Amino acid sequence: MNKSLLALAALSLSVPAYADRADDALEGDTIAWDFVEGITTEVGPRMPGTEQETRGRIWAMDWLRANGFANIADEPFDMPTWVRGIETAEVTAPFAQPMAITALSTTTATGPEGIEAEVVYFPSYADLVAAEEGSLEGKIAFVSHDMRAAQDGSHYGFAGPARWMAPSLASSKGALATVIRSVGTDNHRVPHTGTTTFAEGVTPTPAGALSNPDADNLERMFERAEGTPIRMKLVMTPRDLGTTRSGNVVGEIVGRDPSLPPVLLACHLDSWDLGTGAIDDGAGCGIIAAAAKHVAAEGQPLRTIRLLFAGAEETGLWGSKAYAEAHLDEPVYVGLESDFGADRIWRLESNFTASDPALFREIAAAVGRFGVAPSSLTASGGADLNLVREQKGPLIDLQQDGTRYFDLHHTADDTLDKIDPVQLRQNVAVWTAVVGVLANREEPISMPAAE
Amino acid sequence: MNKSLLALAALSLSVPAYADRADDALEGDTIAWDFVEGITTEVGPRMPGTEQETRGRIWAMDWLRANGFANIADEPFDMPTWVRGIETAEVTAPFAQPMAITALSTTTATGPEGIEAEVVYFPSYADLVAAEEGSLEGKIAFVSHDMRAAQDGSHYGFAGPARWMAPSLASSKGALATVIRSVGTDNHRVPHTGTTTFAEGVTPTPAGALSNPDADNLERMFERAEGTPIRMKLVMTPRDLGTTRSGNVVGEIVGRDPSLPPVLLACHLDSWDLGTGAIDDGAGCGIIAAAAKHVAAEGQPLRTIRLLFAGAEETGLWGSKAYAEAHLDEPVYVGLESDFGADRIWRLESNFTASDPALFREIAAAVGRFGVAPSSLTASGGADLNLVREQKGPLIDLQQDGTRYFDLHHTADDTLDKIDPVQLRQNVAVWTAVVGVLANREEPISMPAAE
Repeated sequence: MNKSLLALAALSLSVPAYADRADDALEGDTIAWDFVEGITTEVGPRMPGTEQETRGRIWAMDWLRANGFANIADEPFDMPTWVRGIETAEVTAPFAQPMAITALSTTTATGPEGIEAEVVYFPSYADLVAAEEGSLEGKIAFVSHDMRAAQDGSHYGFAGPARWMAPSLASSKGALATVIRSVGTDNHRVPHTGTTTFAEGVTPTPAGALSNPDADNLERMFERAEGTPIRMKLVMTPRDLGTTRSGNVVGEIVGRDPSLPPVLLACHLDSWDLGTGAIDDGAGCGIIAAAAKHVAAEGQPLRTIRLLFAGAEETGLWGSKAYAEAHLDEPVYVGLESDFGADRIWRLESNFTASDPALFREIAAAVGRFGVAPSSLTASGGADLNLVREQKGPLIDLQQDGTRYFDLHHTADDTLDKIDPVQLRQNVAVWTAVVGVLANREEPISMPAAE
Repeated sequence: MNKSLLALAALSLSVPAYADRADDALEGDTIAWDFVEGITTEVGPRMPGTEQETRGRIWAMDWLRANGFANIADEPFDMPTWVRGIETAEVTAPFAQPMAITALSTTTATGPEGIEAEVVYFPSYADLVAAEEGSLEGKIAFVSHDMRAAQDGSHYGFAGPARWMAPSLASSKGALATVIRSVGTDNHRVPHTGTTTFAEGVTPTPAGALSNPDADNLERMFERAEGTPIRMKLVMTPRDLGTTRSGNVVGEIVGRDPSLPPVLLACHLDSWDLGTGAIDDGAGCGIIAAAAKHVAAEGQPLRTIRLLFAGAEETGLWGSKAYAEAHLDEPVYVGLESDFGADRIWRLESNFTASDPALFREIAAAVGRFGVAPSSLTASGGADLNLVREQKGPLIDLQQDGTRYFDLHHTADDTLDKIDPVQLRQNVAVWTAVVGVLANREEPISMPAAE
């Protein structure tokens, strides 16, 4: 045995704190499922800034109350709100047929009569970058940049720009509108929505995502048309509703020493309108709430565990920004978020791995039994942890298996049936083990020296 | 070795006719793919009786011409035509949220304002049968009869009645409208359409299928509502267009002796409007055409091979009926159809297995190399073989693996990407081997004595 194996063997002699409770959660947790089943069934889609998101907050506060949480509140904030209208696409020539499309927020409307124009095909985002200025005048740009599945979801960084930036870039080169291949890894007729951003000075235009089978078909049309122009008609009528009210829901397990900075567990309560927000992110809220309850069931923890069910994440992290602004001067002990579906956790990261190795080792020892491996990568925290990032505070990422995540992400297919109850319980078990350690630790976390 | 194993061993010593050609098709056929890629890309959906079905016929005749077939014709017939309109569903209380629905043909419209009513839940078709007369007055019936996947597709017989008969039965008991769980085995937000029939004397009403995830959700709502009435709003605006023109496309490989009855290979060219008709039934037409071409490439066959690309199968077998009526006095040597997707063939059946065992054995020997097992079940022929059934003529069924078929059947997801090119080629290989034997056989097929 080498030295590190010996150290591991020594660790394994002592059963980690909360091991029994976490093992029980692995076998039989029902809390996370109850949350995600409840909110998807009784509320459904929770589009940021809309009445349906408000219903989601009311539902979640009732649930937190019924489940013994304290200091439950809805912390309101204002945000710009965009809602979907009609959305249809059809190739009109030479191979007329309808296509499945969904508009991207915060794009503009075509008007009810729609627009019809020739389509210019760009196999990748780089091809669009290479297009000459003005070359898309009066045309519809089609950017067919495709995405691959990866356990760590890393291909989102490669494929994402097609959604985030292509409509703006195409508009800047004269395009009337943009259609992209969905940023997703499935082959169903359920296009993936999401936000796009128009750069300053660029005129916002209509833009939508075709489902992957439709993008495949459109590519084949270019192959078969042999130079005959392909024309498409788009009708998309989304609307900006102006400023509306959203909110962040918070709730707590109050610790024995409320003067100590709390452990902050985050998720987001809003969801895209197309699905029911099961994996994105009803599951995340269910997981963190279940873990907090399991830890509390073991006896009142030293530190307060605060849940942040953020609002309006999907259309611009509005809840995360509002929470950071409102609570910037309130120190957080450590922040963690669950927002990557409901498949099993396989990797552990922190941003204090080198500066507080004892704590990192303790956490790693607590989750090894569930198949979670420590990683030397630096945690960056979830989207709703702006507060902790701004405080330059401690962050832990419990990375989930994202192989299937982008099959479902931002589609109508984000529904309860996609959640594997066994893997959901593994998430709860891991979170219970980690939160149990953190909420009972008195020592501050040693952070790396500021650069 | 027992006697039948010895017989098999003896058979395997002689290489079956067309074995090389069939083996080549298994390795490298491109004809079937070219057909199904072409028609799904260049035409797309081919709804019976519509202009898009006409475009499909023109496309198919061009393709047959380009691929060397003779005696190509479009044999017209008239039929009643139903087309889809708007279709939306939403639960309005107590758990308001939208649901994915598609109308069944040939149901009626709700009107543009839709209808809103309380939903009555029937877990199965049998539960609807048990409901009292008049008990559904002013209500929407929800029949959640669910389907399982099976290699032989046999669960369609169990699950199908929920679509074929539930709307009529619910209407007869007073229902304003009916929603059923999709007759399908997937869990995507792509509902399965199809036809339903209202019994004589029953008032046709609006009826649609919810996707499986939506039907699951609606079931959970009944569980969670604890008796509070669940209300739903439906807007479905399909229209009857009256009588329109459809047609059957035929084409031939002319045999050395055209006086002999031909081998009839069938598929259907029309498709539901939601998808692009790839597995149902573009693939089938591609498979039979490819097999005919491979057989012809081996030298002119003795008998004519006739392709029947039937029209308007989906909404009532109109093409099959018209073809039977037009050709009833023209004997057919044997009929075969491909209309169950594009997954591999695993089983062989005929309706002359006992009466002409030599021929059945010869065919079985020709396809054993491709993993096809002879079955003692009696072939009933595909939907477009009404002619052969009316003639009480010979039928062969080359049964495909239907495990995935009802994931896609009658949905928007019936697109080219669902076809596995390797399994498609296995189909072509098997058909080549079988058609090679049949088209070169002079002896009539001995049929069982009439009962």
